[in-house]
Formats: sequence, C-alpha cells, structure tokens
Amino acid sequence: MRVLGIDPGTTVTGWGVVERHGAGFHHVAHGCIRTSPESPMPERLGKIFDGVRAVIRDHQPEVATIEEIFVSANVQSALKLGHARGTAIVAANAEGLPVFEYTALQVKQAVVGFGRAEKQQVQAMVRMLLAMESAPPQDAADALAGALCHLQHSSGVTAHLATGGGRRR
Amino acid sequence: MRVLGIDPGTTVTGWGVVERHGAGFHHVAHGCIRTSPESPMPERLGKIFDGVRAVIRDHQPEVATIEEIFVSANVQSALKLGHARGTAIVAANAEGLPVFEYTALQVKQAVVGFGRAEKQQVQAMVRMLLAMESAPPQDAADALAGALCHLQHSSGVTAHLATGGGRRR
Repeated sequence: MRVLGIDPGTTVTGWGVVERHGAGFHHVAHGCIRTSPESPMPERLGKIFDGVRAVIRDHQPEVATIEEIFVSANVQSALKLGHARGTAIVAANAEGLPVFEYTALQVKQAVVGFGRAEKQQVQAMVRMLLAMESAPPQDAADALAGALCHLQHSSGVTAHLATGGGRRR
Repeated sequence: MRVLGIDPGTTVTGWGVVERHGAGFHHVAHGCIRTSPESPMPERLGKIFDGVRAVIRDHQPEVATIEEIFVSANVQSALKLGHARGTAIVAANAEGLPVFEYTALQVKQAVVGFGRAEKQQVQAMVRMLLAMESAPPQDAADALAGALCHLQHSSGVTAHLATGGGRRR
C-alpha cells in the first residue's frame, strides 16, 4: 500500500509518500509546497490545491492522511490553517483518494512510541524508519510520519515492531 | 455581469447568483448546501466542493465573492469555518472563477449603507434590492449581499443609488 501524508499550512504544506515493503517501510518521495505570504489567499489555496493534485498524479498513492487538529495559537492562525487543511482534503478527494485523519498523539505514538514526543524526535525517527540519508525538512517529516501512522494502523503493528520496540494496538 | 456570492460554513453554505440589469439588480438563483454534522469532515468538504461547482455550472457566473473573515467565536469554530471557506474558494477557482473578498463591513455598507447593520436588515434589504417575493434564508441572503457588494464595487455605485440613497465610493 502506498500512502500520501500531508502536513498542511498556508505558507508551507509538507507532503511525503511512503509504502510498505514486507515488514518494513519504503520512502517514495517527499517535498514542500510553498506559497508567498504576499499573495492573496485564493491564489495561495490554488497553489496548494494544484500542488497536492500534482503530487498524487506523480506518485500514485492509494490513500491520503492528514493530521486532525483541535488547537491553534489563536483564532487567526486557526482560520488560516483551516483554509489550507480544507484545501488539501478536497484536493486529495478530487484525485479520488480517501482521506484518513489521525491526531498528533496517534502519529507520535506510532512513529516515536510516545504521544508527547518533540518535533525533532519525530524527524529523527522518520529518517531512521525510512532509512533516509538525511533528515527530511520538518514539514515533510510530519507528513511522512502521518503516512507511516496510517500504514501501521492499517497493518495493526506499530513502527516499533519493525525496529524492535514492539507494541501491538 | 453575473456574480456568485458564497457564505461558507461546514453545516450550511449559502449561495446566491445576481446580475446587473441596467441600473438595477436581478436575482438569478439562490440556495444552501447542507452537510450532516455526523459525517466525517472530508465527506462534508467534498459535498461543499461539489455543490459550489454544480452551482457554477448551472448558473454560469463570471466571478465569485466570499466574505473576508477575521474573527470567530473560538479556535474550534475558526478551524471549521476555515475548512469550509478554503473549500469554497478552491471550488470556484477549479471552475475558472476569480474570487473577490469583501469584509462584512463592506458588504453591509454596500447593501444597507451601515457597516454595523443587523443580519435581519441585510436580509430585508437584499429582498428589496432584488425584488424578491419573500426574504431568502439567512445564509443565502448573506451570499446574495456579497454578490451585490461586488456589483456595486465594480460599477463604483452603491445599492443606494439604485434605490434612491446615493453614495459614490
């Protein structure tokens, strides 16, 4: 199974594509869709929409994952994030992909085995699990972590099994 | 010029299509796209996305307008509203429509001549300006008001000119 993870934001939308190979995971691709804070919102959302669709066409994932969000620094940032997240969801839908939502807690537990892990730990574990030569950028790492979380949920085994930790959910 | 106004929300997205006829305005159509609060967010956004696109195909507006939002009751509602608003914007873009943003102040000033007008006043004035037999539902009225605001901005004349008030911007 090939999974697209999306970490949406109006300025940077990280994405990562991962697939399962036997008991392990395989990194397919990752990147960031960037928009200019000077551009009007409709233009920025258009860039995210087109960008996510292009990633799906290029890498042919079967499902998409996106982090479920409950909190934000303030109403302003929540509104902005909502725009980006909604856009990413409809872009995946427009390409025929079902979208699965996981909380940050679920993603961190799946990848690091600890729900309150720091961002850097997530980044380091993503690199390790996917045997990447260097750590992916933060936004792409979060997207890859979301994709890994889905692979683990859909197989019923956490990443830690693959690397020796072992915890069944 | 034919204008689509959109008043987005995850539960109810109001829409209205208006066009200019000489010095007056003509009501083309209005309605509401409703989604179930029980459905998962991706499904609800998909319904809004498809609904807005269907309205555009059915009524062939040349531009879309959507209210610019800065405030919300709380972070939760801001996140939700952001999703719906982002979805509506990319749906209009996907049909090739430019999207214009107006603040609630601009819309109210255009339609009622008073930026702090109550919702009911907007509803009543929309009905009057468009010579509708009955007042449109609140969400559709706000959408129609947004469309009227754009027609007035693009012509440089407020609704009050058409109805006797008269204020040039």
